[in-house]
Amino acid sequence: MTQYVAPIRDMQFALDVAGFSAIPSLPGFEDAQPDVVAAILEEAGKFAGNALAPLRRIGDIEGCQWSDAGVSTAPGWREAWEAFRDAGWPALASTPDFGGQGLPKSVSTPVGEMWQSANMAFSLMPMLAYGAAEALFCNASDELKKRYLPKMIAGIWGGTMNLTEPNAGSDLAAVRTRAEPQADGSYRIFGQKIFITYGEHDLTENIIHLVLARLPDAPAGVKGISLFVVPKVMVNKDGSLGERNDVKCISIEHKLGIHASPTCVMSFGDAGGAVGDLVGQTNRGLEYMFVMMNEARFNVGLQGIAQGEGAYQKAFAYARERIQGRDTVSGENHVPIIRHPDVSRMLLRMKVLNQAARFIAYWVATQFDYAHAHPDPEVKSRSNGFVDLLMPVVKGWSSEVGCEVTSLGVQVHGGMGFIEETGAAQYFRDARIVPIYEGTTGIQANDLIGRKLMRDGGAAFGLLIQEMSTDVTRLFDSNNDRLIALGIRLREQVALLDSASQHLLSLGKSDMAAALSVAVPFMHLAGIVCGAWQWGRAALLAAAQDNQTRDPYFAAQAALAEFYFVHVLPGASAYGETVMMADSTVADSSLLLG
Amino acid sequence: MTQYVAPIRDMQFALDVAGFSAIPSLPGFEDAQPDVVAAILEEAGKFAGNALAPLRRIGDIEGCQWSDAGVSTAPGWREAWEAFRDAGWPALASTPDFGGQGLPKSVSTPVGEMWQSANMAFSLMPMLAYGAAEALFCNASDELKKRYLPKMIAGIWGGTMNLTEPNAGSDLAAVRTRAEPQADGSYRIFGQKIFITYGEHDLTENIIHLVLARLPDAPAGVKGISLFVVPKVMVNKDGSLGERNDVKCISIEHKLGIHASPTCVMSFGDAGGAVGDLVGQTNRGLEYMFVMMNEARFNVGLQGIAQGEGAYQKAFAYARERIQGRDTVSGENHVPIIRHPDVSRMLLRMKVLNQAARFIAYWVATQFDYAHAHPDPEVKSRSNGFVDLLMPVVKGWSSEVGCEVTSLGVQVHGGMGFIEETGAAQYFRDARIVPIYEGTTGIQANDLIGRKLMRDGGAAFGLLIQEMSTDVTRLFDSNNDRLIALGIRLREQVALLDSASQHLLSLGKSDMAAALSVAVPFMHLAGIVCGAWQWGRAALLAAAQDNQTRDPYFAAQAALAEFYFVHVLPGASAYGETVMMADSTVADSSLLLG
Repeated sequence: MTQYVAPIRDMQFALDVAGFSAIPSLPGFEDAQPDVVAAILEEAGKFAGNALAPLRRIGDIEGCQWSDAGVSTAPGWREAWEAFRDAGWPALASTPDFGGQGLPKSVSTPVGEMWQSANMAFSLMPMLAYGAAEALFCNASDELKKRYLPKMIAGIWGGTMNLTEPNAGSDLAAVRTRAEPQADGSYRIFGQKIFITYGEHDLTENIIHLVLARLPDAPAGVKGISLFVVPKVMVNKDGSLGERNDVKCISIEHKLGIHASPTCVMSFGDAGGAVGDLVGQTNRGLEYMFVMMNEARFNVGLQGIAQGEGAYQKAFAYARERIQGRDTVSGENHVPIIRHPDVSRMLLRMKVLNQAARFIAYWVATQFDYAHAHPDPEVKSRSNGFVDLLMPVVKGWSSEVGCEVTSLGVQVHGGMGFIEETGAAQYFRDARIVPIYEGTTGIQANDLIGRKLMRDGGAAFGLLIQEMSTDVTRLFDSNNDRLIALGIRLREQVALLDSASQHLLSLGKSDMAAALSVAVPFMHLAGIVCGAWQWGRAALLAAAQDNQTRDPYFAAQAALAEFYFVHVLPGASAYGETVMMADSTVADSSLLLG
Repeated sequence: MTQYVAPIRDMQFALDVAGFSAIPSLPGFEDAQPDVVAAILEEAGKFAGNALAPLRRIGDIEGCQWSDAGVSTAPGWREAWEAFRDAGWPALASTPDFGGQGLPKSVSTPVGEMWQSANMAFSLMPMLAYGAAEALFCNASDELKKRYLPKMIAGIWGGTMNLTEPNAGSDLAAVRTRAEPQADGSYRIFGQKIFITYGEHDLTENIIHLVLARLPDAPAGVKGISLFVVPKVMVNKDGSLGERNDVKCISIEHKLGIHASPTCVMSFGDAGGAVGDLVGQTNRGLEYMFVMMNEARFNVGLQGIAQGEGAYQKAFAYARERIQGRDTVSGENHVPIIRHPDVSRMLLRMKVLNQAARFIAYWVATQFDYAHAHPDPEVKSRSNGFVDLLMPVVKGWSSEVGCEVTSLGVQVHGGMGFIEETGAAQYFRDARIVPIYEGTTGIQANDLIGRKLMRDGGAAFGLLIQEMSTDVTRLFDSNNDRLIALGIRLREQVALLDSASQHLLSLGKSDMAAALSVAVPFMHLAGIVCGAWQWGRAALLAAAQDNQTRDPYFAAQAALAEFYFVHVLPGASAYGETVMMADSTVADSSLLLG
């Protein structure tokens, strides 16, 4: 069976398009020199391909096993985690203050994508542990940081996010888990959490749970939620492990995909209360968790791209090997199916959609690094605005792209795609969670038009349009007919995106339900146009590189950009039309009563 | 858990939109009076909901079990088949000459949709058996018909289609199974067939296989394929069962969905040759099989609609029960999620897409009845042309719609959608085979532009455009502003479809690969515009009925039509743009080499 090979060239190119070259000159990122980054990607690619990808299928078949004693992961999982930990991968992007390597997000992003492509169910473990560690790093006391971070960052302990409850999913205001203050300054936690990824497993000796809960006197709603850190095993003053805490996994879910990632129902306080500590100040839990959620949303968006990449590689290999039918043009018989125009179309569509989503994500990662490390406060703030604005697009659009691309991956295989042994269906199943968890596509789209577009009256959005327009000008100034042609179409579609955003700003004032009813179409519009913008930037860079190197890779990038403009970009017109025609039909749910 | 309830009102309305009222006056269909049809739909709905739907989940969990002795179906399957058979359902649309009830396709279509919604894996059994019986009825000798048809039509014996081989999937020219003539006029069949639906099972005492094979002196390619009938158990002259034939199932597939439908690898002739008889004339097998395939393609398209309907019902019920969050407009807290505009949008999209595909399929079914029974040869031939032309749209577009709608069904459920116990994921998995089997979406689209559009220089397509234009005129003449508004937009999009077809006719002459590279986008364009046309017809009928009855159902249909025009029809612009910009990029597969 085809095994994942990290697409290092496409990743490096995406970093170049994102403007990575400026990163190593930022303070703190001096180590991220091109040769170092190349070596990291190379090593990560080897680990992903050799150690993680071979476990993908067995994880799907065996899943996890729950018993009263805990959760066993699939065969080979534990050895893989130990190798992953010993190679230092969990610490890649974490703070050097507690043993991390402090590499920029623009480097940890392609590396994280590799883990996710090679084995999505496995990759959730380091992803969640990193998010939990970041939430502690940003908000916890020094004492708590010292207690937990070194071992979490080293991969000796795992970490989780405990937000969702049976009646509090998208709406965290409804959280009911409670925290009772104790005389010693600690808290006892009581309640049930569901959908907790890697809430229990046998990969590490301890698991550090971050838990949203309410204090007895807390105000109702989201303003009464605090964040607590609750270890699975208590940690003694000297750092050694103490008693088992009163938290346990009472069942795991039977899911459509990512079978090897345990999705746990966690029960806190069945025997007197789970001991925990408050993180930061009381009633600011949601705010702290949002930092972690933004991090997680970015990584989940990346999962869409990662599943698309895996699906693409498998479909591409199959289409080159599978012999069937006759070449329409030459009439040659018994040709590989990649010679059939529709198969080639599907593969090209997979490739350009996926690379567009990757361009956007890597560009956002680079902006994230600017926002954190750039010395100029104006650049910092501008970049921070782009990160905020585009986070729902990275999460929302890339996850929808991941579903489409993995579905095309099944389709390229024909009947074999429906057979589980082929492995194409697993990408399709695994990818299906991506538009759901960490905030559904609907929630991302509401965030995009509500918090990100409307709250500042379109100011940040205007800066993005400006940024795109600058690149349109570069295309026009290129003196290259093919680039100018891209520029003409990009200008039209950027103008459409701009008008659509203006329309929503005004509609939001008179009929918010109508505006929200086209939030997802607007998010698709934004995703498709951002993808075209990024492909425009890619075509510019490719043309320059082609002039210098004559490497056929660059000529191919120009043609791929054109394919995107013919096969994907027209979708913008459709979503734009829908946004412009938004009305209140959705408010009348009586229409749905057969 | 929500159980399927046959959407009889929507089905009846779709029949009315399709012009069913003219059917009972056609010769042979006098029995299909409105009250009879209503009673049949009512009874079928009860059987689907009470007997088949409850087995859907257990079939998914248990699947089928293969052993050397045969294939066991899931618990309850056999009893369900016996009840189905005893109620006479297998005979509904079959010829009265051999015990069938001879009802028109416009009646068997909604009934078939019910079986497929309630339990897709089960419904494949009668669907395949019916197709096999039809192929015999149309092509076999009287002696073979008498031997096999009465018991097949009565549901006492099953039937299958054996086409695919490991190296002959979409390309049947590569079929290698061979048939050796015997002195007694029979044949011995040798070879292996794969992906044979219900190739082996324990539901009936015999299974009648229709098998494509080559005679020793047959010409190469598709012109050397003959059709044979090969029973699992030999049938004696007196009709009693004789010896076991030399055909057996040597394994079954582990699939993404339809677990309870056995997908068999069939081996013919391991012990001296499977005894079979030639159906019709030698070397005309593919032609005979195409009749059966067209029948199967229609039914598979219907499966897309049926899965969409099931997914819609489940999502709708969940969205009305699940309490989460705050109403954006009124601010009311703890509301059912259907009150959130994006959830309502998803449900409306599911509803209008599915109903559009149903309108098209039922319209085609009605045209099929005209083509078979109308006394006027001109109407007959015109209707036959519509059936041929739209078959790839019914199969291709409805199956893509089924995948989109079932995916939205998962999405409406949020995290619960990813949990298998919810049942939404099963619709999503089961539906994924629909765009693959009986000719992939790519093959349907090639058929649409190759055989159906180009072969007659666009003549049949022109008649369809004319038909649509007649309905545009009816909208304009309605004296109803809302209908006129639909007419204006429909006229534009019909014109776009017309231009796109003209463009392809001309492009096909100069650059066939370029034309084929936009075959699927063209099929989507045709599907979306046909859907709008049908919704336009529905809006006309609903307006007339609303005037008469003041039944809120009809006012809702007008609003649903408008929703389709705002949320689905804009997609036509996108696909139209792509078709108009078709180029030869797909021919350069070197672009895909990362």
